[in-house]
Amino acid sequence: MSIPAAPALAAALEAWRAALGADAVAADPATIDRYARTTQTGAPRPSCVLYPTSTEKVQALVRIASDHGIVVYPISCGKNWGYGDACAAVEGAAIVDLGRMNRILEVHSDLAYCVVEPGVTQGQLHAHLRDTKSGLWVDATAAGPDSSILGNTADRGIGHTRHGDHFRTCCGMEIVLADGRVLKTGYGHFPGAHATHVYPYGVGPYMDGLFTQSNYGIITKLGLWLIPEPEDFAFFYLQAREFEDFAPLIERLRPLRLDGTLATAVHIGNDFRVLAGTGKYPWDLTGGVAPLPPQVRKHLRDISGAQAWQGSGSICGTRAQVRAGKQALKRAMRGVGTVRFLNDRTLARLETLHALLSRIGQKHRLERMVKIIRTNFELLKGVPVRQPLMGAYWRLRKPPEEPGDPLDAGVGLYWVSVVMPMRGVDALRVLNIARPIIEAHGFDHDVSMILVNERALVSTNIIAFDKRLPDECAKASECYDKLFETLLKAGYPVYRSGPQGMAKLRAHDSVFWDVATDIKRALDPKDIIARGRYIAPLE
Amino acid sequence: MSIPAAPALAAALEAWRAALGADAVAADPATIDRYARTTQTGAPRPSCVLYPTSTEKVQALVRIASDHGIVVYPISCGKNWGYGDACAAVEGAAIVDLGRMNRILEVHSDLAYCVVEPGVTQGQLHAHLRDTKSGLWVDATAAGPDSSILGNTADRGIGHTRHGDHFRTCCGMEIVLADGRVLKTGYGHFPGAHATHVYPYGVGPYMDGLFTQSNYGIITKLGLWLIPEPEDFAFFYLQAREFEDFAPLIERLRPLRLDGTLATAVHIGNDFRVLAGTGKYPWDLTGGVAPLPPQVRKHLRDISGAQAWQGSGSICGTRAQVRAGKQALKRAMRGVGTVRFLNDRTLARLETLHALLSRIGQKHRLERMVKIIRTNFELLKGVPVRQPLMGAYWRLRKPPEEPGDPLDAGVGLYWVSVVMPMRGVDALRVLNIARPIIEAHGFDHDVSMILVNERALVSTNIIAFDKRLPDECAKASECYDKLFETLLKAGYPVYRSGPQGMAKLRAHDSVFWDVATDIKRALDPKDIIARGRYIAPLE
Repeated sequence: MSIPAAPALAAALEAWRAALGADAVAADPATIDRYARTTQTGAPRPSCVLYPTSTEKVQALVRIASDHGIVVYPISCGKNWGYGDACAAVEGAAIVDLGRMNRILEVHSDLAYCVVEPGVTQGQLHAHLRDTKSGLWVDATAAGPDSSILGNTADRGIGHTRHGDHFRTCCGMEIVLADGRVLKTGYGHFPGAHATHVYPYGVGPYMDGLFTQSNYGIITKLGLWLIPEPEDFAFFYLQAREFEDFAPLIERLRPLRLDGTLATAVHIGNDFRVLAGTGKYPWDLTGGVAPLPPQVRKHLRDISGAQAWQGSGSICGTRAQVRAGKQALKRAMRGVGTVRFLNDRTLARLETLHALLSRIGQKHRLERMVKIIRTNFELLKGVPVRQPLMGAYWRLRKPPEEPGDPLDAGVGLYWVSVVMPMRGVDALRVLNIARPIIEAHGFDHDVSMILVNERALVSTNIIAFDKRLPDECAKASECYDKLFETLLKAGYPVYRSGPQGMAKLRAHDSVFWDVATDIKRALDPKDIIARGRYIAPLE
Repeated sequence: MSIPAAPALAAALEAWRAALGADAVAADPATIDRYARTTQTGAPRPSCVLYPTSTEKVQALVRIASDHGIVVYPISCGKNWGYGDACAAVEGAAIVDLGRMNRILEVHSDLAYCVVEPGVTQGQLHAHLRDTKSGLWVDATAAGPDSSILGNTADRGIGHTRHGDHFRTCCGMEIVLADGRVLKTGYGHFPGAHATHVYPYGVGPYMDGLFTQSNYGIITKLGLWLIPEPEDFAFFYLQAREFEDFAPLIERLRPLRLDGTLATAVHIGNDFRVLAGTGKYPWDLTGGVAPLPPQVRKHLRDISGAQAWQGSGSICGTRAQVRAGKQALKRAMRGVGTVRFLNDRTLARLETLHALLSRIGQKHRLERMVKIIRTNFELLKGVPVRQPLMGAYWRLRKPPEEPGDPLDAGVGLYWVSVVMPMRGVDALRVLNIARPIIEAHGFDHDVSMILVNERALVSTNIIAFDKRLPDECAKASECYDKLFETLLKAGYPVYRSGPQGMAKLRAHDSVFWDVATDIKRALDPKDIIARGRYIAPLE
């Protein structure tokens, strides 16, 4: 039983108001409604929302939660769209909104790292680094400027630059445990230690990984490595014509990822990633039909210049290093697709050309390509643009002109993002499992394949739907279950899950989940923090 | 109390013999003597030695250990010289020698990884990769061909290539827990998962770090990433003339490590690293005096071509990439030191020259430099040469001609290896703390500074002594304590510890160690596995 009894909740609210201040506790229906919103087909409703402003307040609030047996669910900025949003895994939780803890505590320019609180957004840190002329870039995900860096890292999210694997570049955490203790990882717990944010492991067990994709504590500070602005930057944009071309393409790219020529998390999207990322569903052209009929898809692909696959990344370094890297990539792409390189100057020129053509009515073909190129170009410099969120609005009957918070527009969204070895054979197997399932449920196979590290691909399948249509909601939920389970059974588990998938991950009993539970019991025996998140509820 | 009572031990031995076979259990004094040997000034004596041959046998033996309350201490190859050797942290442990589990279970040539058992040595894997013409390199440490890869990784050791940070390149573990359960980390516990050895985190809490530098389980299998042989390979060798030159040198190298030009774990040793790594202590020149008098040190430095600092690393890639990288490094070194590049051809030419000069009696100056260059050249191709072990023999009065197992020669050895930010100011601070302490105790300040990742330096201070001299043993132990504690207090904790340091790390109470103990209690409540290793004994 997770729903708190009314007297327990009332007592907890009183204690929280005393400890945190009245303005840091909300239990009014409007606030609860707002936090209960979800891009998924349903989500547990919270009992209240708490807004701590410091680590000490977080310590106080978990102690109170523990005293009164109320589950707390920490969110950083609550923008986990498509993976559970700001919603707890159980009913009646107190949402701990860490958004007011939004200080950038340190930026070290020589050592290229920063220390941030949970509420620091991608946009905020990017602006800070730019405005202070720090000469540093932060990685950005496609979730836009308002999402939390710490929150994304805690869920092991993926960005675009060579720091795209966020967990791999985080270093030194501060964590509030269920009993109110503050754990500092790595060297952080040694008084005066200098290397806390430059050497992740410290000495003794390296614990940081435990606090990602789990519910063992509330991360209140995070060290994160930054990227020194390179002398030279070449954005590249590659394309391959046919669906099956992905196999030879990835066979050619893998050696370059392995040898470091491609150091960024190259994202390769299919044609839907272009269409949905740069425009609206053409309800007029399809006469209200979905998924997109093949001939309309072909038409849109042709007039937009999209191909079956388009990927982007960057090569950075000195001018000579960039030249050498471009050479290696060009050579690798021979016979499997095309690759084009752009820098600030050449992209600006392309945009001018587009503007000119647009003025004489010849806009279509360049418009979308320029848009998607600009978006990816910015992401590869760590600029958290809003444009990629567009994809989430694809199936809305009445989408807004510009992307904002998907929850404001009634966006329905499930991500099924699975991991496979970086090989053509695995990639095609995954794509060929996903496509028919997604299409059979009436959705478009909007997918990208991310070279997340040197050896693995992540396939992010988006199920975008219109939450105002109950039938589409039901189909989306069914599609999610089927896709998630089929890929899992085929040996391709997700890299990250929303609440609807978590129990599926545990369906096959294993020592792994038993140990995860053993650790939960050791660190949070009352199961107060984020009950049911990844780890099964206790009892 | 750790020492098992005689009846408990007798019962356990009987059960172990039944479960593992009589040839897998040894309790004779000769064997126990052999495993009790240590490079340190003292070590606990084991009660017996077990030699399991499979994961199942390891499961069986921990269950028996648990039933009878006997501590087991797993070793892979037992070559942890200077950090505790093959010795448990408590008296009377059953050493679990995993050396018979020495299968290379998989080498994946396209995805560049392998899966190994604990007994697989550096030399074995290197030879396998070479003989099968795999086109892959494995990283190697300076501990020679007979040391275990898994064991080193479990203690988060450091090698030389771009996979020098071993933990960062390990992916997918199998672990036997204290109750005999088998934990598979990452995706390993999902039936048929394809990405176990290419994506480290899996889904849910990422646990692997927990099982390094701890005592939570016995790792029985390890996935490890390998390095595809590059098209072009340039070894570089840099030198800086004066002690203080380290500060400007590191300020110049850091940007290149940050931007990826220097991708390997550049090792920069002082003159003693050359002298001790390539020759014997000149007892004749010093008239039996130690540490090395300044004028003798200067003389040896001059005739050997050593300078205050010499570093090595490599730049790999296509010919054009290597050319560009060399250019960047040359530019960076301007005014702070010299840098020379060598490849197979030019090094062979240098060696021929040396041989010629040697024939006409002009050998001194080139001999040592060629030796140290060849050693580092090989290490940077992942060849686990034996030469660097020489450093451990430096202070022996009667050293052997060739390095073997330091324990056979009565080598005394302590490593104090601390981590600092990659900055001149921190480096000089650490060096200036270490030097006077080491010299005051009668030892030579033999140190190297390793660019272990993009932002941190590890300073490995070696205290090499002659175990046959009780006075030197006492001095060494004192020196270790003083150095360890002084650096810790100054904010520079070690990255890895021998048993003598572990309690010092815990001397400052912290939530970190409490949590480490909470987890120990959850996973091994009887404190059976490696009691006292990093984590304090329970109770």
